[in-house]
Amino acid sequence: MSKGRTLKLGAFMRPISIHTGAWRFPGAVPDANFNLEELIRSIKKLEAAKFDAFFMADHLAVLNMPIEALRRSHTVTSFEPFTLLSALAMVTERIGLIATASTTFDEPFHIARRFASLDHISQGRAGWNIVTTSNPDAALNFGRDDHMDHGERYRRAREFYDVVTGLWDSFADDAFIRDAASGLYFDPDRLHRLDHRGEFLSVRGPLHIARPVQGWPVIVQAGASEPGRQLAAETAELVFCAPGTIAGARSYYADVKGRMEKIGRDPEHMKILPGAFVVTADSVEEAREKHLLLDSLVHEESAIASLSIALGTDVSGFDLDGPLPEIPDSNASKSGRAQTIALARREGLTVRQLARRLGGYAGLSFVGTAKTIADEMEEWLETRASDGFNVMFPWLPGGLDAFVDKVVPELRRRGLFRREYEGRTLRENLGLPRPANRFFP
Amino acid sequence: MSKGRTLKLGAFMRPISIHTGAWRFPGAVPDANFNLEELIRSIKKLEAAKFDAFFMADHLAVLNMPIEALRRSHTVTSFEPFTLLSALAMVTERIGLIATASTTFDEPFHIARRFASLDHISQGRAGWNIVTTSNPDAALNFGRDDHMDHGERYRRAREFYDVVTGLWDSFADDAFIRDAASGLYFDPDRLHRLDHRGEFLSVRGPLHIARPVQGWPVIVQAGASEPGRQLAAETAELVFCAPGTIAGARSYYADVKGRMEKIGRDPEHMKILPGAFVVTADSVEEAREKHLLLDSLVHEESAIASLSIALGTDVSGFDLDGPLPEIPDSNASKSGRAQTIALARREGLTVRQLARRLGGYAGLSFVGTAKTIADEMEEWLETRASDGFNVMFPWLPGGLDAFVDKVVPELRRRGLFRREYEGRTLRENLGLPRPANRFFP
Repeated sequence: MSKGRTLKLGAFMRPISIHTGAWRFPGAVPDANFNLEELIRSIKKLEAAKFDAFFMADHLAVLNMPIEALRRSHTVTSFEPFTLLSALAMVTERIGLIATASTTFDEPFHIARRFASLDHISQGRAGWNIVTTSNPDAALNFGRDDHMDHGERYRRAREFYDVVTGLWDSFADDAFIRDAASGLYFDPDRLHRLDHRGEFLSVRGPLHIARPVQGWPVIVQAGASEPGRQLAAETAELVFCAPGTIAGARSYYADVKGRMEKIGRDPEHMKILPGAFVVTADSVEEAREKHLLLDSLVHEESAIASLSIALGTDVSGFDLDGPLPEIPDSNASKSGRAQTIALARREGLTVRQLARRLGGYAGLSFVGTAKTIADEMEEWLETRASDGFNVMFPWLPGGLDAFVDKVVPELRRRGLFRREYEGRTLRENLGLPRPANRFFP
Repeated sequence: MSKGRTLKLGAFMRPISIHTGAWRFPGAVPDANFNLEELIRSIKKLEAAKFDAFFMADHLAVLNMPIEALRRSHTVTSFEPFTLLSALAMVTERIGLIATASTTFDEPFHIARRFASLDHISQGRAGWNIVTTSNPDAALNFGRDDHMDHGERYRRAREFYDVVTGLWDSFADDAFIRDAASGLYFDPDRLHRLDHRGEFLSVRGPLHIARPVQGWPVIVQAGASEPGRQLAAETAELVFCAPGTIAGARSYYADVKGRMEKIGRDPEHMKILPGAFVVTADSVEEAREKHLLLDSLVHEESAIASLSIALGTDVSGFDLDGPLPEIPDSNASKSGRAQTIALARREGLTVRQLARRLGGYAGLSFVGTAKTIADEMEEWLETRASDGFNVMFPWLPGGLDAFVDKVVPELRRRGLFRREYEGRTLRENLGLPRPANRFFP
């Protein structure tokens, strides 16, 4: 039984499955990643199950894959996050809507405005997953030949966050009077002009949209590197992480929540949700067979490409049947690179074996029955390895339906997951406070 | 009777009324400009009336008004265009959705992606109103102290258009195979990488979203200056203009369509729709009274501010009861400035009188009964002063409802306006061809 804490569950829906073979699985909708009707069906099912949020990763380029792998990718076409989430807001009422937006390749004025607008349209259900965009191909789509280095990206991200949250606070919550008789639409004393000038950004403000329903949309982060953890501790309210083991997760959890305490933030005001790939079936053996079948649908070219991306270096010239050679430092995401190298060393994998694992999905996976999956989730929650999960489905619709129809009731039976939404906004459901306006406290 | 041509009607809905007194009119919804339920009601009413499009202007800053005027502005808070139009796409099926986006303060990769996404979500109803953003306050929200000059903005706009349309053509229409058996998701020979390097922009591509349903969203423009007319002739399929008189409109129409012919474009492939402010009542006298009542709700501070914006110079120090002095050149929209000066000279208005006219709405207005308004619209259509109108409503909901319930049936009785939509996409309803893919013709 739970000691009172309950799981928070996000659905990782961009891509609709992290597994590159997903679209080929028997019974899968092949274009589910770019099929509005299927996405509507999915989010309604997730909302009926009382999921906290629909979570969209994002990328700003066709992913850097050799063409032989790219032609097999079901993520090569997808909706832009804000247009999709706004559409989905209209067919749902309670589930959170989390979009990824880059602090490296966009403007804080645009980002602040778009999230504020989504928060108003959804009546308080928006979340901003702050990323610094590690894919160097993205730079080439934005007029920059040289990608900003890791440390600089994080300094800019911190400043960008200050500007965006400052713009959200442009109007006091009670600024709008709309008194037709006197002709006063708002109280100008309740409007603040930001006048920000910093290392990377210069933004006057104010933002021309009322303060978001939630004060600020929920702040989400995925950073696992040293500057990423610190940025999360300072700013994040929901963390998406990718631990390799439960021990690693506990250490990460303690580290990040410890950093929060050091700077005076309440550790309860952040929910840490690792991504968890979940394959559900009526027996453990059947689940494992489904997983193997899914892995068999990955092409070797994709596998090699995935490994190249993870390591930030082209591995196609390596001896595929030899061990992983030493990998030089690169501009790739440091945490992903380190985990991949550790996985190869820990399990003594050849380059080909490592590639196949990565070509499907090599991260945290729960493969079993409702009972075994609930057991694992319960252990993670109770030992403070996490506050819940961002669930990754193996394919749509079957993989999502199996989790919702089998695992969710089992979690509920154990008192580990809600039966009804606690509130109306994403913040209320996650148990997060509404931020005070820094200019009109 | 019409000689066969029929009117195209856009609804100018951003702001929901161009008239600054609109929100105070008796019976008006004061927050209609920022009220999702009211906007949904409006667009459903417009779609039931078979309007071609819901048209959203935009601005990238709180408008440059002295605080005494700003506090009376009903446009100071509004939804971001893409989040709003995507939401409205979900409650409508046929009406076009036109968003304004700036070529000066955004990235072509983002713009191309967002419009492609809106076009897919709406099943072919998106339009892009290309603007270069003449408000210098916007520059300060995007880290630039000095606003780009008029000529440079238009050169960049032309290049930006080439990049965006090139990105839309990244995938051939038939690129996606999605053959689960063989594992081929798309045909890489049907993918084009743009590799653009120009005067202002450097964008590699490809775009990571399938070609829009319409091939390209409908291209909209409002430029009236010399470079604006030329850009329209080269690129626009729908033109929003603001002629002062029917004679001026005929001359503009002939000029822009003549420019099209010179470069080999079919003049039928552009629809010119002036903005028209329409006050409808059961008698001409009643309509005029409503108009006067509306004007009386404008505050003098707003009036002075509007005139300052139109002229690109602060007029608050001028002698308000004297004639308009000589106005120096500025970076303000050239066409708006020239029209304002011409209006003052033509009618011999004092600065105060000119300001009050501008503080309400000083552009093309049809104020009368269904019959007199239809008479005027018919004359404009038949004398090739326009192909229809972007209708501006005096307030919501009453001003919109009166036009839809009274004028639209009268236009229909005369055979001047459709009874049913001709097609499924905005292009089909406007009678515009679907552009061929430049890389996969």
